[in-house]
Amino acid sequence: MKNTFGNSLSVTLFGESHGEMIGAVLDGIAPGIAVDEAAIAHRLSLRRPAGKISTARQESDPFRIVSGVFCGKTTGTPLTILIPNENTNSKDYTATRSLARPGHADYTAFCKYHGSEDYRGGGHFSGRLTAPLVAVGAILQEALKEKGILIGTHISRCAQVSDRPFNDYFADIDYLNHRTFAALDEGAEQKMIQAIENAASEGDSVGGILETAVIGMPAGVGEPWFDSIESTLSHALFSIPAVKGVEFGSGFALADMTGSTANDPIAIENRNIVTKTNHNGGINGGITNGMPILFRTVIKPTPSIFKEQNTVNFIEKESATLSLGGRHDPAIVHRARAVQDAVTAIALADALVLRYGTDYLTKD
Amino acid sequence: MKNTFGNSLSVTLFGESHGEMIGAVLDGIAPGIAVDEAAIAHRLSLRRPAGKISTARQESDPFRIVSGVFCGKTTGTPLTILIPNENTNSKDYTATRSLARPGHADYTAFCKYHGSEDYRGGGHFSGRLTAPLVAVGAILQEALKEKGILIGTHISRCAQVSDRPFNDYFADIDYLNHRTFAALDEGAEQKMIQAIENAASEGDSVGGILETAVIGMPAGVGEPWFDSIESTLSHALFSIPAVKGVEFGSGFALADMTGSTANDPIAIENRNIVTKTNHNGGINGGITNGMPILFRTVIKPTPSIFKEQNTVNFIEKESATLSLGGRHDPAIVHRARAVQDAVTAIALADALVLRYGTDYLTKD
Amino acid sequence: MKNTFGNSLSVTLFGESHGEMIGAVLDGIAPGIAVDEAAIAHRLSLRRPAGKISTARQESDPFRIVSGVFCGKTTGTPLTILIPNENTNSKDYTATRSLARPGHADYTAFCKYHGSEDYRGGGHFSGRLTAPLVAVGAILQEALKEKGILIGTHISRCAQVSDRPFNDYFADIDYLNHRTFAALDEGAEQKMIQAIENAASEGDSVGGILETAVIGMPAGVGEPWFDSIESTLSHALFSIPAVKGVEFGSGFALADMTGSTANDPIAIENRNIVTKTNHNGGINGGITNGMPILFRTVIKPTPSIFKEQNTVNFIEKESATLSLGGRHDPAIVHRARAVQDAVTAIALADALVLRYGTDYLTKD
Amino acid sequence: MKNTFGNSLSVTLFGESHGEMIGAVLDGIAPGIAVDEAAIAHRLSLRRPAGKISTARQESDPFRIVSGVFCGKTTGTPLTILIPNENTNSKDYTATRSLARPGHADYTAFCKYHGSEDYRGGGHFSGRLTAPLVAVGAILQEALKEKGILIGTHISRCAQVSDRPFNDYFADIDYLNHRTFAALDEGAEQKMIQAIENAASEGDSVGGILETAVIGMPAGVGEPWFDSIESTLSHALFSIPAVKGVEFGSGFALADMTGSTANDPIAIENRNIVTKTNHNGGINGGITNGMPILFRTVIKPTPSIFKEQNTVNFIEKESATLSLGGRHDPAIVHRARAVQDAVTAIALADALVLRYGTDYLTKD
Repeated sequence: MKNTFGNSLSVTLFGESHGEMIGAVLDGIAPGIAVDEAAIAHRLSLRRPAGKISTARQESDPFRIVSGVFCGKTTGTPLTILIPNENTNSKDYTATRSLARPGHADYTAFCKYHGSEDYRGGGHFSGRLTAPLVAVGAILQEALKEKGILIGTHISRCAQVSDRPFNDYFADIDYLNHRTFAALDEGAEQKMIQAIENAASEGDSVGGILETAVIGMPAGVGEPWFDSIESTLSHALFSIPAVKGVEFGSGFALADMTGSTANDPIAIENRNIVTKTNHNGGINGGITNGMPILFRTVIKPTPSIFKEQNTVNFIEKESATLSLGGRHDPAIVHRARAVQDAVTAIALADALVLRYGTDYLTKD
Repeated sequence: MKNTFGNSLSVTLFGESHGEMIGAVLDGIAPGIAVDEAAIAHRLSLRRPAGKISTARQESDPFRIVSGVFCGKTTGTPLTILIPNENTNSKDYTATRSLARPGHADYTAFCKYHGSEDYRGGGHFSGRLTAPLVAVGAILQEALKEKGILIGTHISRCAQVSDRPFNDYFADIDYLNHRTFAALDEGAEQKMIQAIENAASEGDSVGGILETAVIGMPAGVGEPWFDSIESTLSHALFSIPAVKGVEFGSGFALADMTGSTANDPIAIENRNIVTKTNHNGGINGGITNGMPILFRTVIKPTPSIFKEQNTVNFIEKESATLSLGGRHDPAIVHRARAVQDAVTAIALADALVLRYGTDYLTKD
Repeated sequence: MKNTFGNSLSVTLFGESHGEMIGAVLDGIAPGIAVDEAAIAHRLSLRRPAGKISTARQESDPFRIVSGVFCGKTTGTPLTILIPNENTNSKDYTATRSLARPGHADYTAFCKYHGSEDYRGGGHFSGRLTAPLVAVGAILQEALKEKGILIGTHISRCAQVSDRPFNDYFADIDYLNHRTFAALDEGAEQKMIQAIENAASEGDSVGGILETAVIGMPAGVGEPWFDSIESTLSHALFSIPAVKGVEFGSGFALADMTGSTANDPIAIENRNIVTKTNHNGGINGGITNGMPILFRTVIKPTPSIFKEQNTVNFIEKESATLSLGGRHDPAIVHRARAVQDAVTAIALADALVLRYGTDYLTKD
Repeated sequence: MKNTFGNSLSVTLFGESHGEMIGAVLDGIAPGIAVDEAAIAHRLSLRRPAGKISTARQESDPFRIVSGVFCGKTTGTPLTILIPNENTNSKDYTATRSLARPGHADYTAFCKYHGSEDYRGGGHFSGRLTAPLVAVGAILQEALKEKGILIGTHISRCAQVSDRPFNDYFADIDYLNHRTFAALDEGAEQKMIQAIENAASEGDSVGGILETAVIGMPAGVGEPWFDSIESTLSHALFSIPAVKGVEFGSGFALADMTGSTANDPIAIENRNIVTKTNHNGGINGGITNGMPILFRTVIKPTPSIFKEQNTVNFIEKESATLSLGGRHDPAIVHRARAVQDAVTAIALADALVLRYGTDYLTKD
C-alpha cells in the first residue's frame, strides 16, 4: 500500500530531501520494548556519509521520537520518528529542474506527478528517506536481538573487489555491527575504499553487492503463496533506492547446478534438524527452516556522477547535456548496508508478529 | 496477505496437489472484458508437462469458470476458475510422509502446520497450484494486449546453455507465445532439451534463468516507496516455486559497472523520451519510464530427483536416506515461464488499476 | 479490499445467484481444527427459507469443502467451500432486465458495471451469497466455542413486535442456536410469524432488528484507531444485504442519556473486573473489556414485493411500472440472523488472530 | 490495518494527548491539489472547544505541514501534518493512573498494553487525536468540493432537543460549514446550548445524534461485498471516539416499515434517474445511486463527569470511588461534527480513487 510496508507490523514513510523534515511511523510494535536512543544513533551513524567515499552533505540526524514511547519504553501505539532536514542547499537543483538526470527518477516522477513533485534533491525519492527507515529498524533490531535473532550485512563485492563470505555467523555479525565500513576482510576493505576514492576522483561512481545473514529465526515462519519470506523480504529490499536484484541462498548460481548438488542434505545435529549446505538460504517453500537466512542484493553505481551526460529537457522535450554540480556519493553500497539491515528487521518482525501475535517481541 | 496477492486487483489461490480441485479467484477486474477460453487453454498448455523433459503426470487441466463471467464477458465481480485434480496417485507419497525431501517444504510445512498439512505431493506448496495462476494470468494478458501491453518470457539459460537475448521485442514476444519450449535460438533450444534429457536419464535435474520483457507499459506507473514496480513484481515472482533470485535490467552485473556506463543516456526519438540503453530495466525510482520492462529470475533445479539423498525423519527425529519414486520433472524452467508471464500480468494489472481506476482495462 | 474481508484471517466471497455455483475461501485459519460438516449443515439450515414466511425457492445447500481440510481437520492453508446453485429459474428475470427494482441494486450495478453485470436474481448482490459466509462462519463458531467464546442472535423486533432482551446470556445463546426462528419469547415468536404471514398475504414485506451477544471474549482485543472492534464488526455487518444500521450497547438511546447514567460503573466480582451495566456493549475505546459484546442491526423490509411499483427503465431512460413475479421472502430477518452470527465470528476471529497469532484457535 | 485507514488513499494517525505532538500522514492524494491553510485552520476551529459548553483546555492547533506540499500544492507523495501539544497539564492525571474512569478506555488499554500505555489524558485514545484527522479531512473536503461533492453535518439531536432535518441540501450544507454550533434551526441551537450548560453546571454530560449529508457523489461507487459504502463509512465513523451507532437513510426506523413504504420509488427528473424518497440514504447494494448520501451517528455522553463514580483500581484489583478534577467537555457532539465531516471525506475519497484512479481529484 504505497508508502506503508507491512501488515501486522507496519512502517509508513514520509518526507522529501529538501523539505522541513522526514520521518516514519512504526505501528503494531509490542508494548514494553526498551527504546535505546544510543542504539538508534549508532545505526544512523552507520548510514551517514563519511570521508572521501561519501557525499559532502553532512547531517547529524538529530532524530526525535514524538509518539509511541513513554517512560523509555514502547507503548504499543504508533511510534513516530522525525528527523529535521539540515544543510539543505536547494539552489543547487533549481537550474536543472527539467533536465532528467540519467539513472534517477526525475522523468518518471514527472510522468507520475505531472510536475507537482518536489524536484529538489530527488524529493520523496531521495535516499535521504532511508534515515528514518534505519531509525525504526534499529528499534526492531534491538528487540529481535532479545529474542536471539541477529542480523548482519557485509559488502560482498564493490568495484570488482570481493569480500570473504560469512564464516562464523555469530562472530561475523557482531563484528559487522561495530564497523563503519562493513567488509569482513580488512584487505578487501582497504581495496574497496581505494576503488571508491578512485572513482570519486574521476567524477564517476561504483556499485556493489550486499550480503545479509539472519540467525536465530524460528522455523515455520512465512507463507507458501504469496507472502513467502522471499516475497516479503524482496518487496522490502527493492524499496531501497539503487537495489536492482535480490537473490537468496546460492541465488543465480543455482541456474548452473544440478538437483543433486543444489538440494541441501538434511541431518540431525545436537538434536536439531539442520541442512548440511544452505543453497536455499534458510527458506523452503517460502517458510523458514531454522538455518541462517542468507541473501544478496545488488546496488547499482550511484547515478549522480560529475561526468557530462546526454539527456533531455523533459518539459521542453529537447535534447540536452547535463553536468552535475553539488555533493554526491561516489558509492552508496557502504551506507546502504544499514538500510538493508533495517528493512530486513521490519519484514521479519512483520512475519513474526503475524505468526505469534502482537506481544511476540516482549513475550518470554 | 497470505494467499491473496494484489490490492486494487487481486488473486486468491487455493487447493492442494492431491485434493479434489485447485482454483483461483480474480477480483477487481474491469467489467466487459471478453474471456477467450481457447486463450486460457493455450496458456495452460504451455505450463503443462510434455515429452521426456517433464513429469509423466499428465493433466488435461479442464478448467471451469464458475463465477464472474456472463455472456462471455467479465462481469466485474469475482471471477473464479476451478481445475479438478485428475490422475492423482496418492499412494506414492504416504510411505515417505515423515521423510523430509531435501529442497522441498516438507519439514517447514510441518513446523508451520504442526502435522495437519496435506503432505500428499507437496499439498498446498505444489507447483500444481500454478495452473490456476496461469489461467487468470491468461485473461489479464489478453486484456493487456488490447491496451498494447505485451509480455513474453524466454529461457535465457538452462543447464549451462544460453539463449540469445531479446532482439526485436515485438517479434520475439510474438514468437515465444507460440512456442512450447520458449527459447529464441533454435540451436540453444535443442541443446537445452538434450541437457534436460541427459539429467533425466541420470535421475538428476537442472535449473535455469527466465528472462521476461514487457513492452507498451505507460510511463509513470509504480510507487517510490514501498510499492515500486520492482517490489511488487518481485513479490509476485518469488511466489513461483523454485524462484530464488530476481534481477531487473542489468541486475547483478551492475555491481561491476561504473555510473558512467550504468546510467542510461536519455534521448528523444520520434518525439518520445527514451533511454539509449536499458540497464535499469524500464524502471527508475520504482516507476515505469516507458522503456521495456526487463527482468530475470533464477529457477533452481527441481528438488525431486531419483538419486538417493540424506535426510531425516522429522517426526521420529532420526537420520534417514530417501530414494524418490513416482513421477518428477527433470526441469521446470520451460514450464515455469508460463507462470512467470501470468504473475507479471497480475502484478502489472494491479499497478495499472490503482493508477487509472477499475475500468482501465476496458477504457478507450 | 472488495470481496475479501479480514487481515490476519480473511474470507473471499464469489458467485452469482444464477451462476453455476457460489463459494468462499477462508484463509489464515489455524491448522488442526476439527471440521464438523453436520455443524455447517445445521447453520446453513438456519439460513434456509422455510414455510410461508420465506421464499418458495428451496435449496438444499449441498456444500463441498474442496481445499484446506485433510483427515477431517483444517490444514492451515486456504479452506474453500463451494455450493452449487440449484433450482435456478432464470427466465423469471430476463423480461425485467432493464427495470430497476426499487430498493435493489439493479441500477447501481448498471452504473458500476456498465451493463456487463449478471442481472439474474440480483447476480453477485444476491442474498444467496450469504450461504457460503454462513458455512465458513460455522467452522469458526465451532472453533471459537472451544475457546469459550459463544455467539447468539435473536430477532429483537420484527413487524412492530418486540422480543424480550437477553437475560441469561449462556442459556439464551444455547436456546437460540437450536431454534429455527430465533425469538427468545415464544409469544413474540408467534406474533412475529403471524405478522410476516400477513405481510406475505398482502404482497408486502416487513423488516426488523437483530440483536447479537458474544460472551467469553478476552479483554484487550481491538484497536483504538481505525480497527476498533466496533469498526471491524460494523464493516462486516454492513456487508449483510439489507442491514442499514448498527448500534453497540445502548446505541442510539445513548443520545438522550447523561454521562452519569450512561457510564458503566466498574466493580470486582469473583475477582474479575466487570461493569455493573453494559451501555457500552463490552467495548471501551474500541477494545473489548471482557463483558458481553452486545449489538443490534436493523434489517430493512425485503425490497422484493408483489405490489406494483413506480420505477424506470434505466437503459431506455423512461418511466415504468413494475410488478414482480417469481419467488420472494416477505421477511429475511429470521434468515439473516444466521448470517449475522457468521460475520460476527469472522470479524472477531480476525481480531483474535492478529492479537494472539495464527495458532490461537487451537492453542491450549 | 490498525492506525491506518483506507486502501487507495489512506490516513495514518499517531500521537498521544500529552505527548510532544500528534499528527497524521495522508497518502495516495492526487498531485496538484491546492492546499489552503486557512481552510484547514477553519475546520480545526470548528473542532476546537469554545465557551462554557466545552473543556477549558484551549489549544490553538498551530499545525505544520512538513511533507507532501510544495509551492502550495500537493506533490502526490505523503502529506504529513503535525500539531504540537500545548497546554498539557499532566499532573492532573497521575494520581488516578490505576483508577479506571467509567466509560473510558483506561482498563481496556491496560489489558492490551500491559501497563506500558501512556495513560495521561487518555494517551493515544484521546479525542485530541481527531485534530489531525480534521486537518487532513479539510484538504480532502476542499478537493471534493472542486468535484462538486459537498459534505455537511448537523446536530440532529442533543440532550433531548431535536434539530429540523435537512431541507435544501445545498443551502443547508453551506450554512452549516459557516456555523460554530451546527444546528439548522436557531431555536433548537439555543435550547441545545442551554441544555449542555445545564449539564455542565450539574457536573454531568450529555450526548446526541449527528446527521451528515453528502451531495454530488457520482452513482456507481462502492462494492457489493465487504467494501460497501456503508461498510467503509461505518468503519471510519466508529473510529470517532464516543460513536456507538451508525444508521443510513431511515436507519432503525426501517424496522417498523413495510417494503411498500421503505422502497424508494425511482423516477426520471431533468433526464436524471432519481428516487422520490431516500429511505436507503443514497446507497443500494453498497453502491452509490447518485442521491444524497444520508447517515446518522450517535455520540454517547462524554464519559468524563465531575460526579463521584464507582470504579476499581485495576492494578490493585480493589473497589474504589473516583471524582474527576481537571478540564472536561460536558458534551462533544458539537465538536465531533467536524470530525464526522473529515472521516466522511476520507472514506469517500478512498472509494473514489479506487474507482477512478489516483488522479481523480484533479482530473477535469
